[in-house]
Amino acid sequence: MQVGFIGLGSMGSGMAANLLKAGHTLTVFNRTPNKAEALVAEGATLAKTPSEAARGDVVITMLADDAVVERVVFAPDGILAGLKHLSIHISMSTISVELAERLTSAHRIAGQRFVAAPVFGRPEAAGAGKLFIVVAGEQKTVQACLPLFEVLGQRTFIIADKPPKANLVKLSGNFLIAAVIETLGEAFALISKAGIDRAQYLDILTNTLFGAPVYQTYGAIISDERYTPPGFRAKLGFKDIHLALRAAEALQVPMPVASLIRDRFLTLLATGAADLDWSALAALASRDAGETSSLSVEK
Amino acid sequence: MQVGFIGLGSMGSGMAANLLKAGHTLTVFNRTPNKAEALVAEGATLAKTPSEAARGDVVITMLADDAVVERVVFAPDGILAGLKHLSIHISMSTISVELAERLTSAHRIAGQRFVAAPVFGRPEAAGAGKLFIVVAGEQKTVQACLPLFEVLGQRTFIIADKPPKANLVKLSGNFLIAAVIETLGEAFALISKAGIDRAQYLDILTNTLFGAPVYQTYGAIISDERYTPPGFRAKLGFKDIHLALRAAEALQVPMPVASLIRDRFLTLLATGAADLDWSALAALASRDAGETSSLSVEK
Amino acid sequence: MQVGFIGLGSMGSGMAANLLKAGHTLTVFNRTPNKAEALVAEGATLAKTPSEAARGDVVITMLADDAVVERVVFAPDGILAGLKHLSIHISMSTISVELAERLTSAHRIAGQRFVAAPVFGRPEAAGAGKLFIVVAGEQKTVQACLPLFEVLGQRTFIIADKPPKANLVKLSGNFLIAAVIETLGEAFALISKAGIDRAQYLDILTNTLFGAPVYQTYGAIISDERYTPPGFRAKLGFKDIHLALRAAEALQVPMPVASLIRDRFLTLLATGAADLDWSALAALASRDAGETSSLSVEK
Amino acid sequence: MQVGFIGLGSMGSGMAANLLKAGHTLTVFNRTPNKAEALVAEGATLAKTPSEAARGDVVITMLADDAVVERVVFAPDGILAGLKHLSIHISMSTISVELAERLTSAHRIAGQRFVAAPVFGRPEAAGAGKLFIVVAGEQKTVQACLPLFEVLGQRTFIIADKPPKANLVKLSGNFLIAAVIETLGEAFALISKAGIDRAQYLDILTNTLFGAPVYQTYGAIISDERYTPPGFRAKLGFKDIHLALRAAEALQVPMPVASLIRDRFLTLLATGAADLDWSALAALASRDAGETSSLSVEK
Repeated sequence: MQVGFIGLGSMGSGMAANLLKAGHTLTVFNRTPNKAEALVAEGATLAKTPSEAARGDVVITMLADDAVVERVVFAPDGILAGLKHLSIHISMSTISVELAERLTSAHRIAGQRFVAAPVFGRPEAAGAGKLFIVVAGEQKTVQACLPLFEVLGQRTFIIADKPPKANLVKLSGNFLIAAVIETLGEAFALISKAGIDRAQYLDILTNTLFGAPVYQTYGAIISDERYTPPGFRAKLGFKDIHLALRAAEALQVPMPVASLIRDRFLTLLATGAADLDWSALAALASRDAGETSSLSVEK
Repeated sequence: MQVGFIGLGSMGSGMAANLLKAGHTLTVFNRTPNKAEALVAEGATLAKTPSEAARGDVVITMLADDAVVERVVFAPDGILAGLKHLSIHISMSTISVELAERLTSAHRIAGQRFVAAPVFGRPEAAGAGKLFIVVAGEQKTVQACLPLFEVLGQRTFIIADKPPKANLVKLSGNFLIAAVIETLGEAFALISKAGIDRAQYLDILTNTLFGAPVYQTYGAIISDERYTPPGFRAKLGFKDIHLALRAAEALQVPMPVASLIRDRFLTLLATGAADLDWSALAALASRDAGETSSLSVEK
Repeated sequence: MQVGFIGLGSMGSGMAANLLKAGHTLTVFNRTPNKAEALVAEGATLAKTPSEAARGDVVITMLADDAVVERVVFAPDGILAGLKHLSIHISMSTISVELAERLTSAHRIAGQRFVAAPVFGRPEAAGAGKLFIVVAGEQKTVQACLPLFEVLGQRTFIIADKPPKANLVKLSGNFLIAAVIETLGEAFALISKAGIDRAQYLDILTNTLFGAPVYQTYGAIISDERYTPPGFRAKLGFKDIHLALRAAEALQVPMPVASLIRDRFLTLLATGAADLDWSALAALASRDAGETSSLSVEK
Repeated sequence: MQVGFIGLGSMGSGMAANLLKAGHTLTVFNRTPNKAEALVAEGATLAKTPSEAARGDVVITMLADDAVVERVVFAPDGILAGLKHLSIHISMSTISVELAERLTSAHRIAGQRFVAAPVFGRPEAAGAGKLFIVVAGEQKTVQACLPLFEVLGQRTFIIADKPPKANLVKLSGNFLIAAVIETLGEAFALISKAGIDRAQYLDILTNTLFGAPVYQTYGAIISDERYTPPGFRAKLGFKDIHLALRAAEALQVPMPVASLIRDRFLTLLATGAADLDWSALAALASRDAGETSSLSVEK
């Protein structure tokens, strides 16, 4: 397929490389073009504008937040201006339900097609083609995209006709991860202060009822208080919880643990920890228990 | 070994049967003796008092709560009165850190030995010898008990010298389970109200980052809103969170999510749902989102 | 002075009448013009557009929310289009800090002057000229408005040069009122369930440390569970807490009690109680304590 | 009357002095007897045991907490042993509902009479005879005590027959005060970070809807961040919230703001601030907003 790819950050660069390797014709765009060099060396074409990258069958966006996606889509030289009749925009970024709704309707009005396909997975998974992809869109459109998802992910979940639902699933998933972090943080503060070994405690959890990647990954970070370098920054964690709560507010769904976690992230942001890993939530539990935490060492 | 077993409820009866099958000489005690009949038919001896059940090498207690354990141990015809010099009391119930401390010291003063060995697992796991056992006690004493743990569980974690630490690990583990329930409840309320299929949502969770027994078990119950018959009653969930918070208070560790969950359990108790499964926490999230929930149907 | 007045709701109609009585020349605008009839009968002029109402020395807006204020100011026939060079827009509505910032800058660019002057007080106070007015704006501009504030309120607090600060004070004040409601609700649920007389309890509070209007007014409503007719609707309470939290988020200030109250308002909205008085927060405390509450009777 | 007075701390010494001045015959007991010297100089008799102090018509206890009251009442040389048939024990300390229940029944069984009469007011008010007294007990017994309450307080509220209800009112009142502190703390963190003057903000609050002693007293302390010397220590605040929550738990009443405040107090205790004034809760709000607070300066 003729594929455009916009957004060559730590996630996007690995994903684009996989598409190229799989034999797709790739046109890439990135705000700072030097990030495209490696891909161009492998045969990708460098577009000067998002519009130019959107002239194939499909254009994929993998960008930081709502503001960047908005610009890349709606600017005069943006995707909306470049995408052909019935061509497809696949939005894989973690964006708001609200923006997903606006993209759905803008592309429909323009005679274009739109699929939301946010992903679970860190940069390593993106590079290895091991992402989990949650997809929503019109059935026929989604079918047309499947070959791409097979390259990018280890598993694709097709959940609904309306694209914004995929974004809601993604945001709710990030809430559940943040909740694991917060509650592990509280549990570690408790057992640590009682003099129980952190690593041994984690070993018990992950070998009994909590043997899931989310406990293994974040449990290890928290057990070691290794909040830097960040895999996913606290400020991005805040953004996602904020978006989850905004979606919940629109649907009139109270989520008290989400509200509590939002305040904890806000504390990280306000106290200079915005660029630590989002699992630094756990350092707040240590701090409030009067334990020396790597967070306070940090500052 | 000569083993006494006190407490033949849904957990204890399966555990005692496994010990018998493994060739140990078993003396059992239960407040309502008819529950012992099947075991006696298989060769167990029925004791008339806890003291009488405690005359072997080891006596195991598997009881409902602090009050029952206290009675069984400290009554004139209790374990303390019956247990021989250097014989061992293994407490496998979920009890408070505080009571575990009192037991530790009472047995030491009486020249007896004490091990705390609370378990993770539901009655099915108890019956199948598949429990997870968290053990704390003096090293030599724990070694002496290992053959019994091998019969009762699929894995034994030896964590510390001081028995109460095992109880704290157990309570903190139940907090983490309750937190999974609460946050799944909030997430399900959100995605349900958005019109996303509950079963499909759970499928995504358990096949990506959340592929652990705790999400599978409770996710299925919550997805189906099947809060009765209870596997573990809301009132017992409340009790355990209460004990976790009491231990945290003694150690001066704030646990805001635990506090929030305590209030939710209290709401279940106050609104007539004390005997639903503890995963009925999730029904409160539905109720507060204005969705008809099985909880309101219940009443 | 030549005064325009836009927004003749339950607050604005009393305020406009007071200005007329005090001898000011009044031009009024309201979306539904029949609300202006009484004022016109007393000598006010009816404007056909906000722009037309804004041609005097000063135009006052007293409107429901951000959306209405935005429309009235920025529409082609809005205030911005009608207000003369150096004339003054006094915004007395409860609006967001963000909109106050945009109004400040839009008026400055247009060579006009802007003052924020939100008020504390219910419709009775507005009618009686007994409002409390919190004012922020350039000193000279504020001075020019003082004669109007003297007519409208019993006391004027001049707090800062930057108009949005007055809006923040107003929003934080509404948070404090909501917090009094929520905590009174919890306290009443407690003492009621213990069999203590509600009226007598309130009498103790208001005659000891809590002898302030906010406890007298809301204490009486809660004691009697008289949540309808609403003095200030739950949905407006939600809006104000939402705006307070948005301002706090922009400033990176965690406000855990405000977050908790936001969730409680959201529960009111989701369960059909949006149009009860905002003190119906207290009915949720009764409900969760298993007490029959007027809220459940309501539905 | 022949009055015994036990507990000559900062509250009790002023109260006892007032009783002496009013002409009552006073026998005093205090664990550290030198605190009684001034009273003895004025004509009081020094008792060697609580029992000895309890031999008159009435004995009043004004002590730090449950543990001390228990000792003073139930010890072999305690009040229960000394108090004559139909003589009255007036408990004015802030104690648990549970202990009040035990005292009620112990005195009844012993043929003695019991009244609970906890107070609102700081040491200055105690010295000036300006306390607020909340009384519960059998009507005739309460009547007999009124002359003493008239000396000690500015107003007496008789609320119920059952003594423990007075203790519940007191605990719920302390919860409401702590809630004012916490929410003022959040509001001050917000307006401070926005650059609004703290003193001016407080002036607005106390001159509008919040003109009650609780806002004046604690607003001034928080505005000035003057958390030491303590008027009422954070650890005592924690104790009272703990007792309020325990009473609420027994009645199955969820109190989410109380739970939140409990965690905040626990944070103060765990981080070395147990002996600051309990209004140091507000310093946590500043800290979490990233503002330098007197709390962090303190450490």
